[in-house]
Amino acid sequence: MKCEAILHIPLSNYAYGVDETHVVFRLRTARGDIKTCTLHYGDRSCRRTPVIFSAAPMRIMASDDLFDYYEIKLNSPYTRICYYFEISDGKNTCLYYAEAFHSELTDERSEYYQFPFNRREDIARVPAWVNDAVVYNIFPDSFATGRRFISRKGTQCLFDGQVTAGKNGGTIRGIIENLDYIMDLGANCIYLNPIFVAGEYHKYDLLDYFHIDPCFGTDEDFRELVETCHRNRIKVIIDGVFNHCGWNFFAFDDIIKNGEKSKYKDWFYGLTFPVIRPDNMEDYPNYACFGYERKMPKMNTANLEVIDFFRKVCRYWLEKFDIDGWRLDAANEINFDFWRIFRKTAKSIKPDCLLIGEVWESAYPWLRGDQFDSSMNYDLRKNCRDFFAAGKIDAQGFEGRVTQMLIRYPEQMLCAQLNVLDTHDVPRFLTLCRGDFLKFRLAVVFQMTFIGIPSVFYGDEQGLQGRMEDEYRQVMQWENKTIFDFYKKLIGLRRSNIALEQGDFRTISAEKGARLYVFERRYKKQSVLVALNAGKRKEVISFLSEDYKCVLQEGVNGKEIHPWGFGIFEKR
Amino acid sequence: MKCEAILHIPLSNYAYGVDETHVVFRLRTARGDIKTCTLHYGDRSCRRTPVIFSAAPMRIMASDDLFDYYEIKLNSPYTRICYYFEISDGKNTCLYYAEAFHSELTDERSEYYQFPFNRREDIARVPAWVNDAVVYNIFPDSFATGRRFISRKGTQCLFDGQVTAGKNGGTIRGIIENLDYIMDLGANCIYLNPIFVAGEYHKYDLLDYFHIDPCFGTDEDFRELVETCHRNRIKVIIDGVFNHCGWNFFAFDDIIKNGEKSKYKDWFYGLTFPVIRPDNMEDYPNYACFGYERKMPKMNTANLEVIDFFRKVCRYWLEKFDIDGWRLDAANEINFDFWRIFRKTAKSIKPDCLLIGEVWESAYPWLRGDQFDSSMNYDLRKNCRDFFAAGKIDAQGFEGRVTQMLIRYPEQMLCAQLNVLDTHDVPRFLTLCRGDFLKFRLAVVFQMTFIGIPSVFYGDEQGLQGRMEDEYRQVMQWENKTIFDFYKKLIGLRRSNIALEQGDFRTISAEKGARLYVFERRYKKQSVLVALNAGKRKEVISFLSEDYKCVLQEGVNGKEIHPWGFGIFEKR
Repeated sequence: MKCEAILHIPLSNYAYGVDETHVVFRLRTARGDIKTCTLHYGDRSCRRTPVIFSAAPMRIMASDDLFDYYEIKLNSPYTRICYYFEISDGKNTCLYYAEAFHSELTDERSEYYQFPFNRREDIARVPAWVNDAVVYNIFPDSFATGRRFISRKGTQCLFDGQVTAGKNGGTIRGIIENLDYIMDLGANCIYLNPIFVAGEYHKYDLLDYFHIDPCFGTDEDFRELVETCHRNRIKVIIDGVFNHCGWNFFAFDDIIKNGEKSKYKDWFYGLTFPVIRPDNMEDYPNYACFGYERKMPKMNTANLEVIDFFRKVCRYWLEKFDIDGWRLDAANEINFDFWRIFRKTAKSIKPDCLLIGEVWESAYPWLRGDQFDSSMNYDLRKNCRDFFAAGKIDAQGFEGRVTQMLIRYPEQMLCAQLNVLDTHDVPRFLTLCRGDFLKFRLAVVFQMTFIGIPSVFYGDEQGLQGRMEDEYRQVMQWENKTIFDFYKKLIGLRRSNIALEQGDFRTISAEKGARLYVFERRYKKQSVLVALNAGKRKEVISFLSEDYKCVLQEGVNGKEIHPWGFGIFEKR
Repeated sequence: MKCEAILHIPLSNYAYGVDETHVVFRLRTARGDIKTCTLHYGDRSCRRTPVIFSAAPMRIMASDDLFDYYEIKLNSPYTRICYYFEISDGKNTCLYYAEAFHSELTDERSEYYQFPFNRREDIARVPAWVNDAVVYNIFPDSFATGRRFISRKGTQCLFDGQVTAGKNGGTIRGIIENLDYIMDLGANCIYLNPIFVAGEYHKYDLLDYFHIDPCFGTDEDFRELVETCHRNRIKVIIDGVFNHCGWNFFAFDDIIKNGEKSKYKDWFYGLTFPVIRPDNMEDYPNYACFGYERKMPKMNTANLEVIDFFRKVCRYWLEKFDIDGWRLDAANEINFDFWRIFRKTAKSIKPDCLLIGEVWESAYPWLRGDQFDSSMNYDLRKNCRDFFAAGKIDAQGFEGRVTQMLIRYPEQMLCAQLNVLDTHDVPRFLTLCRGDFLKFRLAVVFQMTFIGIPSVFYGDEQGLQGRMEDEYRQVMQWENKTIFDFYKKLIGLRRSNIALEQGDFRTISAEKGARLYVFERRYKKQSVLVALNAGKRKEVISFLSEDYKCVLQEGVNGKEIHPWGFGIFEKR
């Protein structure tokens, strides 16, 4: 038995409550090493000693190159559970608890693994609507000035004596006038990059948190947008930039003017007085920033006044404009407690608002239920890039990557992940595919059939490309019916099929060296198979039985799947 | 290379800030498998792409049966770090990042491991005084009625019409009158099991959180105790029981009387109306309890009124009586957020108060800096039991157990652990040794020379024994000068030697099958070696150089160490 491979972490993604009666337990073992794995669970408060244990078999939920991940979702009769694992490789059997291997049990109940109390307050909960959500992500400056139209004209506006800039002419009204397009696509949630008053066209250098940037329109335009969206059952998520502000923000301005005497001197992080605004982009500022962006001073989000200020911002847009959620910028650079307070504030106003943290890496420290519901899943993009676009990994490698995405969070947060192929911060995925739509197509199929919320960055459905910032944030186009229809079909399929929306995920075929990847989504008796041929060879989908009918395909002929083809099959 | 063994978890005990400039990184590998392990770290916000990395060699800080643990405490020039590990077994070298093995680097900085921002608010901090703390744990009913005297008489008192009981006659005044004894021992902190008004002698079934139980004395007695302690530089920690109360607590009483109409109906967890007090101990109550103890109904610690009530309790004893800390009962059964709020309340009044959670298992979920400073380290007891008392594990096995204790928390919380051999909840350690003082002695030496706060349960220093509750909570004795003096010497040694108090820990000798365990504590240039022979054979401490002089020993003769002997050696 490869003991080094075995891993269990109490009170983590390896042991968590799904609801008040169901608790998930997971155990990692070396791949192919173990024959059976059994959870033994007992009542921590059992009146008898030794504790009476019950056995429950675990099954492999996923695998990667090195490991199998065993899982059981226990319908637990106890709120307080002590437990151990019985692991057998066919020859040897051992008992695993307290991070050690044992040949026998102990009478000391405290020495087993503990799930101390499945407390309802500590069970992570995400809004139910994430199950059916498909997001359309709009970079406001680049999207639309009017119906199917963007002016491409730079604008300059005045706000409180400060100049704010637009670049391409996108407005809130432009979004309103194209909601029919978004609805036609099948998206039911828009996520807007920042829209508050800010200096640059991207609006991440905030000047005012309580108004829409005048280049984008008025507060009333935004109110109309949200109302129109809601009438059409579209949710609205906006971008919250709380890590930093713009260097003309009133509080920072006050520090520049009044130095250490400023009453805002504790509003910022890492100031060295006298604080000055460096002239050149290359200069290192004498205050903490987002990156070294001198125009974006980092705020002290542990300061009670700052917390209070941003709680007001949080409240204002939820209460007065009825937004449905926040995407939270640079979330991993802000102290945890700020987010806990922010969550409480937001959820107290709108319990089913969605909170998405911008965390590119594994976001579990923020996804324990106390902070965000979701994070931006850039790993989906990375993994699709490496398998579909770059061909750097084979099907087995891709399975491993998928497994990492499945295992790293509790299932609640997995279902709420914002699955992105593209955002305003990265080259367009089609460009990563060197414009090869066949490769791009497979990635989109995967995005639309994986667990979590697909997020379409405006124009991806139009085949927009771009490697540099100016390019991937280029203006919207409206003419590419082919790609649009492809997205529309996939989104329609997803939203009409509960297995695709809420089903479990299981890899069916992912052989070493192979380019064919097949997986199943299953919800109760409903099942969908998805086959993706990310290679140049024709493949045979041998496992495909008569029970399945093809509902969407390209390059599938019977059981044959042509190079770069895909098939989606529903169980009859 | 045994890839399955390699483990790193970002933002955990494997990567944490010690202060604003120092960050600890750890990596687990298979034992003896790796030749070199190097951390490569760069600025996440580096203006150049690819990011410029610097290399820093890691060293093995500890090992267990299966694993080596590499560590580096990095004096980081960056607050935002991306990093990867370079691991070589002499033949092969690989790069480890994003939970995967790579042969080359990537230009995408976001795809390395991330330490997003070493934010000062998220750095765990514990009170500085833990470094020099030695705790004396008093179970008030059993300790003393007067100077070197306990009445052994049961008492019954009235409080607000309710009867409260004592069993052995211990009082607060008894503690005051024996402070000289505790000081003579060398302890500088007392931790008292519950002292508030409660029904039973153990006082875990609370009736009133704002008064001392009349069987123990008056509020003024307690004030005098704290004042006397403080005059003598003794800290006072009291026991906070917030998971449950007693079933005669006013709020529960109101529920019994008024049922669903009670304004306290949301103060408790899992009520089924009509709530009744079961007649028999064996009956299962129709409300959640501590265990199934019908007299201890579980409170709803997520209820805002309950939170507010306990915040008042927290404040009251810190502000009005100037206590120095709370030991928090059944901490792992209470929602995390309750503890976060409790911590903020306590620390806002007394920033260096100590918060110790009762968590028997690995307590990391509570020790991230947002909840407790410390937990009760029952693993110390378990490991000493298995090595010294029961002889179930050999020196190598003990090393492995020690390593687990060293690695599982960030160093701040490791230094604040309450290291117990005994408490009011377990059989006396000397009884686990079947009364064999030679074995007991070794465990005490280990307790007093390990990292963390030693906690002496009253009477351990008198050789008290007991397997059953009544026995291990038996009345205090005062006659055993031998064991007392032994404790006194060890405590004196610890408190006069900074290496023992604050030094790093390193195992020197722990061979397979052996019973000799030797370790070093080192602080800068000061070093202490401790040799423990937990076996029946004479051993030779071969590594002992001329540089070391023996400062305390039993059974040591030159380099020879007799069965069950120990030696403590200081570097000259």
